[in-house]
Amino acid sequence: MHFTAEQIASLIQGKVEGDPQASVSKVAKIEDASTGDLSFVANPKYEEYLYKSNASIIIVNDSLNIESSVKATLIKVKDAYSSFALLLERYNDLISNGHRSGIDSTASVSESAKIGADVYVGAFAYIGDNAHIAEGAQIYPGCVIGDNAQVGTKSKVYSGVRIYNDCIIGDNVIIHSGTVIGSDGFGFAPQKDGSYKKIPQIGNVIVEDNVEIGANCTIDRATMGSTRIKKGVKLDNLIQIAHNVEIGENTVIAAQTGISGSTKIGRNCVIGGQVGIVGHITIADYTSINAQSGLAKSVNTPKTALTGSPAYDYKSSLKSQAIFRNLPEIQQRLISLEKTVEELSALLSEKNISDKK
Amino acid sequence: MHFTAEQIASLIQGKVEGDPQASVSKVAKIEDASTGDLSFVANPKYEEYLYKSNASIIIVNDSLNIESSVKATLIKVKDAYSSFALLLERYNDLISNGHRSGIDSTASVSESAKIGADVYVGAFAYIGDNAHIAEGAQIYPGCVIGDNAQVGTKSKVYSGVRIYNDCIIGDNVIIHSGTVIGSDGFGFAPQKDGSYKKIPQIGNVIVEDNVEIGANCTIDRATMGSTRIKKGVKLDNLIQIAHNVEIGENTVIAAQTGISGSTKIGRNCVIGGQVGIVGHITIADYTSINAQSGLAKSVNTPKTALTGSPAYDYKSSLKSQAIFRNLPEIQQRLISLEKTVEELSALLSEKNISDKK
Amino acid sequence: MHFTAEQIASLIQGKVEGDPQASVSKVAKIEDASTGDLSFVANPKYEEYLYKSNASIIIVNDSLNIESSVKATLIKVKDAYSSFALLLERYNDLISNGHRSGIDSTASVSESAKIGADVYVGAFAYIGDNAHIAEGAQIYPGCVIGDNAQVGTKSKVYSGVRIYNDCIIGDNVIIHSGTVIGSDGFGFAPQKDGSYKKIPQIGNVIVEDNVEIGANCTIDRATMGSTRIKKGVKLDNLIQIAHNVEIGENTVIAAQTGISGSTKIGRNCVIGGQVGIVGHITIADYTSINAQSGLAKSVNTPKTALTGSPAYDYKSSLKSQAIFRNLPEIQQRLISLEKTVEELSALLSEKNISDKK
Repeated sequence: MHFTAEQIASLIQGKVEGDPQASVSKVAKIEDASTGDLSFVANPKYEEYLYKSNASIIIVNDSLNIESSVKATLIKVKDAYSSFALLLERYNDLISNGHRSGIDSTASVSESAKIGADVYVGAFAYIGDNAHIAEGAQIYPGCVIGDNAQVGTKSKVYSGVRIYNDCIIGDNVIIHSGTVIGSDGFGFAPQKDGSYKKIPQIGNVIVEDNVEIGANCTIDRATMGSTRIKKGVKLDNLIQIAHNVEIGENTVIAAQTGISGSTKIGRNCVIGGQVGIVGHITIADYTSINAQSGLAKSVNTPKTALTGSPAYDYKSSLKSQAIFRNLPEIQQRLISLEKTVEELSALLSEKNISDKK
Repeated sequence: MHFTAEQIASLIQGKVEGDPQASVSKVAKIEDASTGDLSFVANPKYEEYLYKSNASIIIVNDSLNIESSVKATLIKVKDAYSSFALLLERYNDLISNGHRSGIDSTASVSESAKIGADVYVGAFAYIGDNAHIAEGAQIYPGCVIGDNAQVGTKSKVYSGVRIYNDCIIGDNVIIHSGTVIGSDGFGFAPQKDGSYKKIPQIGNVIVEDNVEIGANCTIDRATMGSTRIKKGVKLDNLIQIAHNVEIGENTVIAAQTGISGSTKIGRNCVIGGQVGIVGHITIADYTSINAQSGLAKSVNTPKTALTGSPAYDYKSSLKSQAIFRNLPEIQQRLISLEKTVEELSALLSEKNISDKK
Repeated sequence: MHFTAEQIASLIQGKVEGDPQASVSKVAKIEDASTGDLSFVANPKYEEYLYKSNASIIIVNDSLNIESSVKATLIKVKDAYSSFALLLERYNDLISNGHRSGIDSTASVSESAKIGADVYVGAFAYIGDNAHIAEGAQIYPGCVIGDNAQVGTKSKVYSGVRIYNDCIIGDNVIIHSGTVIGSDGFGFAPQKDGSYKKIPQIGNVIVEDNVEIGANCTIDRATMGSTRIKKGVKLDNLIQIAHNVEIGENTVIAAQTGISGSTKIGRNCVIGGQVGIVGHITIADYTSINAQSGLAKSVNTPKTALTGSPAYDYKSSLKSQAIFRNLPEIQQRLISLEKTVEELSALLSEKNISDKK
């Protein structure tokens, strides 16, 4: 299939600069694109490629200052990244028929399970007693959906996801392979003989609508009540969410971050990768936390930016980090100052003595 | 089902304060509890809820100092957390019939495997040649138990756990979904051409009795001999245990921590989340290591507390961390001191000159 | 089976010191070895065991300086570790017949899939439409190989691995249980209402020949193009590789490390455990990065060694870390210096006044 600059511009409400009949047949990243490719530039880091690229059409922000000549036909839009995302979506719909339907003959579906219309249940998937798979949901091969668990309308559960008993997944949720939802929270009471007694974890996990969860994450069930991932949350891969945690709407968390038990995170927070957050704290809305930070205290003021382990105010923390690098020099300056002061002291005391003479 | 304060108190040897006929039908966390709920307060952080809660019955430590009026009927016990855990266990037994029995018709069980009485083998589970599943063990759907592997009496292996050949799981062990036991240790010999040659990993993993392992953990088999998780150890989710590691009895490790090869950890240690421990070191009994620490050296003295990356003595490390935050101020003080000293020096040398004149 | 020192030495081109007829029947680590065992010493940390060990035969580097008497018969070779690895490999071939063949009757293999000669497809494995499993490849129980995916000659895919549609695995690759290859990259465009719109991820993952990937790793598919793991790369467990990352030949990465999107890592790098690397940077060949480091900038000079979070030059970083530990003392010295300088100032100004009198 070929698309012209004119056709693409009309899809994304863009303005063509160059040949409206320039045509493309596939998409590529700006650094890899060649003739016949459609690409985009949104991140300033990649602007240099604009001038070198052999792409036939490039989507750019209309705010972009073009500094030298560009071979490609440009399509100028308000937000190149979003426009390109929209095109990818259309493209994706065209090339792949992601939606499947029907229950594979090898699947094991409990007689008491409730299966909606147009549902896909893949090979070797297991659907427990009284589970509910709502209309259009996609359960890929080898998934396990426990007793009384629910998967909402049009949600997509990739192969090998394990959802324990009683957990509830909302509508339009995507869960990637290997993720475990509803394993027991980590709760043990220390005994006199040094051993630990397991605290039964009788709560569940609730994942609200439009959430996406990456691969091989673990989200523990609540001791009592629910661990809750609210609407629109996006979790990357290998993330650990402990029992009774709550994550607010539209909060985004990068890979390998861990949130300890009962912590409540606000809405629209942005949390980097490999962050650790202690238990039983509260984090205000719109908090941003830098990668590898360790958060040990509640954040009460919305829109706070934090970094470091232990984490504190982003700007101050960066200053301390910069000085940390200079510590050898600082130590040297301290030593030389000590020497000078000692000499001055000696001189002065000598002088005093000589004065008194 | 309803239970009165009197009935509950008799189960946990507690003392009722308030209405002995107050009754509850379910359990809830203190911050969520409403009329008809049983709850508890053990963590001082949650004491404030005691005075606001609508719970009908609250279990508290008898050492707790009640500072104002409480609506709920109280049951005072020595250890509220343990008592509540005991009740949850009873409750859990009542509401859920966790124990299953029988081999699912879709399971693939080798003819040479030895299956004990009252064992559950779920749908699509695979039991290899000469494997041994002991009496009462629970193998959930989609598990793979390799050739010659053993699972002990009453152990519970949740769906999608993979146990490689020759690994041994003790009695009353719980392993959560997605955990991999017995994958090859990470051992490669560098070659002259820059490539690496795999070192075969011919050992196994031994998990002793009463261990609980969280979801999506990885425990590598030994190069030779055994990687060993001793009695009563509790591992949270997403933990990495490398080849030939030994973890002592009753040691507890929080999520996302990684232990490198051949390291030996003592008994009753408490290790936080996201900790990294280098290989080939020894850690004394009762060591406690703060979250996100990086341990690069052996710990020889039992009961040592450590933090930081690299980790050292907890108290000293906290002091350095506090000063780290003040580095900008310290640098400022150093600069102003340098200036003062320079002025003094100038003054003195001037004076000396004028004195000499 | 028994082997004599003479026989073993001839296999590894070693020189016997001691009884050439000394014989062994199994292998053990030097610290565990007893009579009848073959062992080796390569790491200087373990040299002390050489003199205590009851092993019957020990392989050592011919450069090793023997400082006291050794009971065992020694076999001296250029590289004890590699020689031992070679022996383990032979031993492994003898004791285990790792290679399997045939398609299990319970496996689900698409009619359009292309299955090579001598392939093993285990129980409950799923092979999608137009997938290609090349000659001699081993697909263990419960794996999912997506539509159009490829697994190369003699590659070994352990149980429960999930390979998404269109991903390509080379020859002689080993992938351990639970690893997910080809899940969607983490890409979302922020919307005005605070929610996020998913960017379709239409690329794939290419894993080249001779790569080994540990258990429960996650390797995301590219937004466009390919996430690429080049020849001979070795990845430990629980590693996160984001979309469009490239990892150069023979680079080795320890457990729990995460690489963010579009970063390009050179060849023959050595990256420790729990390292975090930001997106969109380039790392030169032969870079070494210490465990728990956080890398935020490109590394342009090959053979650079880095540590810290944020990471910089290894040696300077260690110096700063050493001073960090001394910060309480340094603060004390600064305080005492301030006091001395204040006294000197006072003295001098007094003097000045008295001089002027």
